[in-house]
Amino acid sequence: MEQWYRDRHTKGVELHFKIEKNIFSVKSAIQQIDIIESKEFKRMLVIDGKLIHAGKDEFIYHEMMTHIPMAVNPDIADVLVVGAGNGGIIHQLIKYKTIKSITVLESDEVLIEVVKKYMPRCSESLSDPRVSVEIGNDMKYIRSVKNKFDLIIMDIPDPFGMGESHFTKEYYGNCYTCLRENGILINQHESCFYDEHKGACQRAHINSVKIFEISKVFQASISTYPSGHWLFGFSSRKFHPIHDLKAKQWQELEIPTLYYNTNLHIGSFALPTYVESVLKIVE
Amino acid sequence: MEQWYRDRHTKGVELHFKIEKNIFSVKSAIQQIDIIESKEFKRMLVIDGKLIHAGKDEFIYHEMMTHIPMAVNPDIADVLVVGAGNGGIIHQLIKYKTIKSITVLESDEVLIEVVKKYMPRCSESLSDPRVSVEIGNDMKYIRSVKNKFDLIIMDIPDPFGMGESHFTKEYYGNCYTCLRENGILINQHESCFYDEHKGACQRAHINSVKIFEISKVFQASISTYPSGHWLFGFSSRKFHPIHDLKAKQWQELEIPTLYYNTNLHIGSFALPTYVESVLKIVE
Repeated sequence: MEQWYRDRHTKGVELHFKIEKNIFSVKSAIQQIDIIESKEFKRMLVIDGKLIHAGKDEFIYHEMMTHIPMAVNPDIADVLVVGAGNGGIIHQLIKYKTIKSITVLESDEVLIEVVKKYMPRCSESLSDPRVSVEIGNDMKYIRSVKNKFDLIIMDIPDPFGMGESHFTKEYYGNCYTCLRENGILINQHESCFYDEHKGACQRAHINSVKIFEISKVFQASISTYPSGHWLFGFSSRKFHPIHDLKAKQWQELEIPTLYYNTNLHIGSFALPTYVESVLKIVE
Repeated sequence: MEQWYRDRHTKGVELHFKIEKNIFSVKSAIQQIDIIESKEFKRMLVIDGKLIHAGKDEFIYHEMMTHIPMAVNPDIADVLVVGAGNGGIIHQLIKYKTIKSITVLESDEVLIEVVKKYMPRCSESLSDPRVSVEIGNDMKYIRSVKNKFDLIIMDIPDPFGMGESHFTKEYYGNCYTCLRENGILINQHESCFYDEHKGACQRAHINSVKIFEISKVFQASISTYPSGHWLFGFSSRKFHPIHDLKAKQWQELEIPTLYYNTNLHIGSFALPTYVESVLKIVE
């Protein structure tokens, strides 16, 4: 009997994946975590029934969140990552010798154990000596810390459910003071292609615009995410993501990537007209 | 009872759409044509079980195939469109007052009648006085005509099945002689994200490269197409798609678009690293 996993994108659209094997399931105190192996997308992390990362396309999401800020400010030394995910962000960050510390905030200890055991390709990066994992409430942490990081990457999966409180003006304000003067905040803005996600995307954008001197939106094509057209926010106190891009300097580092390159960096900020309109309404 | 239409993307991935209503079905001498109404994607054209165009995202495919060449050469006067589709290409082309003639080649007369009746939003453009529809074999037509068009847009849905013979060196060669000296050919290159489509994508690219002086690939995010990351070919005897872009001149035309703009035009040629690698192998 064939087994398929269905990921609901909207009330009327679902992406279905043929499953080879259910690898592991556990209900932590916070969420239901499933690891499944799909024919096309390899090993997948599913939380509360929703696909978080798939082996075949996770590199796109993680490369774009990491290399975009690193190519704008090569002096980034101290990084805060909110949400451990499958370790994919850290997997990209440790490619930079210049990074001195990576602090990972994760609320669910069980998730860390599960990805370490069942998704080693990315999660083994968690044992890099520069990485420290803090288990607990990230909001409390971010409120309590001032002027400490050069880069914050918010890898919060869901701005509708549990993650909703991470897309507020207050949260962005706390990130702002948590960053040094040269700080950059990267977060995901979801997609505004489907009507039912448009509001979340606008909320994320308006709250960045209110707090940061510079707030720009960039995009990537991620097959498994609803609509496949994914948006991210680049917010900064002083860096412009294109005018301050150090393309040559980044290329000289010879960081291996499968999606990101410095041409695509510039292109990723050139948004479709309908996306520009959706964002402009709230600016 | 809920009714869902499933579009197979690969052996292990399917996109499912909730259906409100089956509008019309007919088996022509050539193919099975279905018109269905989906909750999220509005009216959909399905041929031989495969989704061709959906009301909600057809503008992306059609705008990118049309405005990219029109913004490079604003003097385009005579256009050949291979495949009528839902009339979406013609819907975009007739926005240009400078276009004098649009010749549409379509092998299936029944398809023209069906889209005219059930997809009027785009197909009403077929009655523009500059449009002439030729029913018959497009290969024969293209072989027989020399030096007649400024632009050919190949809207051939499927490089694996029926459309396979359209992605050959011979076909591109015939397009080349069918074009005037300033001619541009636009065709779709599918996606190279999934392994089972990679070969078709490479074939389309290598055959363009062999025939045309300039062959570049551009991309768009189209939610309903396999992987959501769609590639197109821009082939020309003398125009470079970026160096020869007339951005200001195009903007002054004030052509209404939902996806295309001249910033995105440039960005759409900045491809992900893995796509560059797939294409470079065959160059």
